[in-house]
Amino acid sequence: MSEAVFKRRLRKLSRLLEEKGYDAYVVNTPSSLYYFTGFRGLGSLLICPGESPLLIVPVLDSNKALDEAKGVEVATVPVGEKTIKRVVELLKERKCRRIGFERLSLSQSIFLRRRLRKRFIKEFDDIVWKLRKKKDEGEISLMKEAARLAIIGLQAAVGEARPGMTELELAAEIEYAMRSAGSERHAFDIIVVSGKRTSYPHACPSDKQLSVGEPVTVDLGAYYGGYCSDFTRTFWLEECPEEQEKAYRAVLSAYDSAFKKAREGVPANEIDRAAREKLGKLSRYFVHSLGHGVGIDVHEPPRISPTSKEVLDEGNIITIEPGIYVRGKYGIRVEDTVLILKDKAERLAEFTRELLVI
Amino acid sequence: MSEAVFKRRLRKLSRLLEEKGYDAYVVNTPSSLYYFTGFRGLGSLLICPGESPLLIVPVLDSNKALDEAKGVEVATVPVGEKTIKRVVELLKERKCRRIGFERLSLSQSIFLRRRLRKRFIKEFDDIVWKLRKKKDEGEISLMKEAARLAIIGLQAAVGEARPGMTELELAAEIEYAMRSAGSERHAFDIIVVSGKRTSYPHACPSDKQLSVGEPVTVDLGAYYGGYCSDFTRTFWLEECPEEQEKAYRAVLSAYDSAFKKAREGVPANEIDRAAREKLGKLSRYFVHSLGHGVGIDVHEPPRISPTSKEVLDEGNIITIEPGIYVRGKYGIRVEDTVLILKDKAERLAEFTRELLVI
Repeated sequence: MSEAVFKRRLRKLSRLLEEKGYDAYVVNTPSSLYYFTGFRGLGSLLICPGESPLLIVPVLDSNKALDEAKGVEVATVPVGEKTIKRVVELLKERKCRRIGFERLSLSQSIFLRRRLRKRFIKEFDDIVWKLRKKKDEGEISLMKEAARLAIIGLQAAVGEARPGMTELELAAEIEYAMRSAGSERHAFDIIVVSGKRTSYPHACPSDKQLSVGEPVTVDLGAYYGGYCSDFTRTFWLEECPEEQEKAYRAVLSAYDSAFKKAREGVPANEIDRAAREKLGKLSRYFVHSLGHGVGIDVHEPPRISPTSKEVLDEGNIITIEPGIYVRGKYGIRVEDTVLILKDKAERLAEFTRELLVI
Repeated sequence: MSEAVFKRRLRKLSRLLEEKGYDAYVVNTPSSLYYFTGFRGLGSLLICPGESPLLIVPVLDSNKALDEAKGVEVATVPVGEKTIKRVVELLKERKCRRIGFERLSLSQSIFLRRRLRKRFIKEFDDIVWKLRKKKDEGEISLMKEAARLAIIGLQAAVGEARPGMTELELAAEIEYAMRSAGSERHAFDIIVVSGKRTSYPHACPSDKQLSVGEPVTVDLGAYYGGYCSDFTRTFWLEECPEEQEKAYRAVLSAYDSAFKKAREGVPANEIDRAAREKLGKLSRYFVHSLGHGVGIDVHEPPRISPTSKEVLDEGNIITIEPGIYVRGKYGIRVEDTVLILKDKAERLAEFTRELLVI
């Protein structure tokens, strides 16, 4: 991304701050620091409308910040000193009265209230997400590459899986394929589970061996240019029991139903409901939300859940991932990362959703 | 771990709670849930001295909790409902008055103060760390295996590194070796940097090619039975510039100086100082703490820094990792994971610390 992109983002954030009547805001999650400056590391970005933004980093990350951050000045904090102490000094120097923080822990909040008496302090991140939720062309193209790398992982999964191989060995092959192709890190800890372990939506791969007739679920994500992707497939080795084949088709039609409904202007809870309804009786095994936003973070707004109040917007990138998990028996999930457009949703990359028995 | 181990840990925690005068405590970090129950996932563990401990999990993780958790009852919370709401109901039912939480975000804290008026609520985790910091025999043996797997990664690094290979390709080889050998996940995002990029203490591998005469730093960790390891080496391809060789020897003697000092009863800041002093003028490039505790989390107490107030105790497992980072030129770090004993420190696994030019 060019410096102009970051400056534009910072200008928009400043405008939103002024509208809310704040004279200072502190961005302090690594993913938002990356969004606004291009720097990947720890620190706090102090924004006061009308003044130049200042990135304050622990000296640990100063070489990196000086090389990577664009459109901002960089100040460093020595070993053993806390960034928040420096932020407080600056807020006092600049005589800020109404101050927003992107994220505060309870102890940070107590510290601030003691050090910044008589100022109004609030934690909020809606203005950050207002910007981050709507991906621009540059972001979409990075995420398409992250999606392409994830598909390389899925191809390795179905290409390498053999009876007798352990879940860990399969995970090794998949990660190797994604890394060698250019994935800068794993978007999250890969899930490779088989047999009854597929009834865990989240789990580490284990030394359990893959067996004929058992399902294998692989949930993975690549990372490119600072952006994540997130895809899942369940497939079977050599044969698929009839009950599980039926269940797979149900999950797939839940996916299709949600995917067809997804577009700008649709409430997020409606596409969750579309999937849930399609599952009929099986919906009691659908124990998580339909999806979540993806971007610099692998889980970010908008939430796509039964209780979500969000409405889909052009430029949102979300997962659609219905799944069912039958205790002690099996689990199935199908997940793609998709881009929301004016009149439809578009998958960031394609990998077959047909029943795979390999 | 057997059920007896978890029950013993829970009993100790109950006793510490009673001593502090609390009638309820909520454990809610995934790593502490694992420590006290053997369950790896999301949830809250409610402990009221005199009553049976109750693990409350989102239905997403209920299959896993029912299979994994030992010594506790399991209750599940349906999709879309928040665990903390259920915790509040239970605290009211049980008429708890003085309630501790292991960790609270600012928004959780506001929610609790509204819903639990007239009760005393406090965030603290010192009682958890009092137990977790001192590793028992079972934990030490899991961590030795995690350390052995990390050494397999370092062996792959020096065995596979070649001029022309990218940092990403080398990362792929290392991760493949650790995964295939049984590492259940990566303890953290692997760092593989070369040339000037070694001046970043933390960075993702990139598509930069390894070159003759340049340093390569590999910082990696494996994960076994729920426990992490953490090791770093810097090595050179074919030749090592004289200035860097000198710097390497300085870092190594800083390491030795700290390692020799480390044992029960020594203040953590003293071993940090021992390393810093040994570096002499180079210490201005030593821009981070000497080390940190390692266990279920890869970064946990005790902190080993210039300002740490902790005193080393038998059973602590920490890293010793002096490093120097010269902007635009090079960086060097040597790191082992070590166990603190009564009269010395012991490395969890061995990998050469001699200057490596491969």
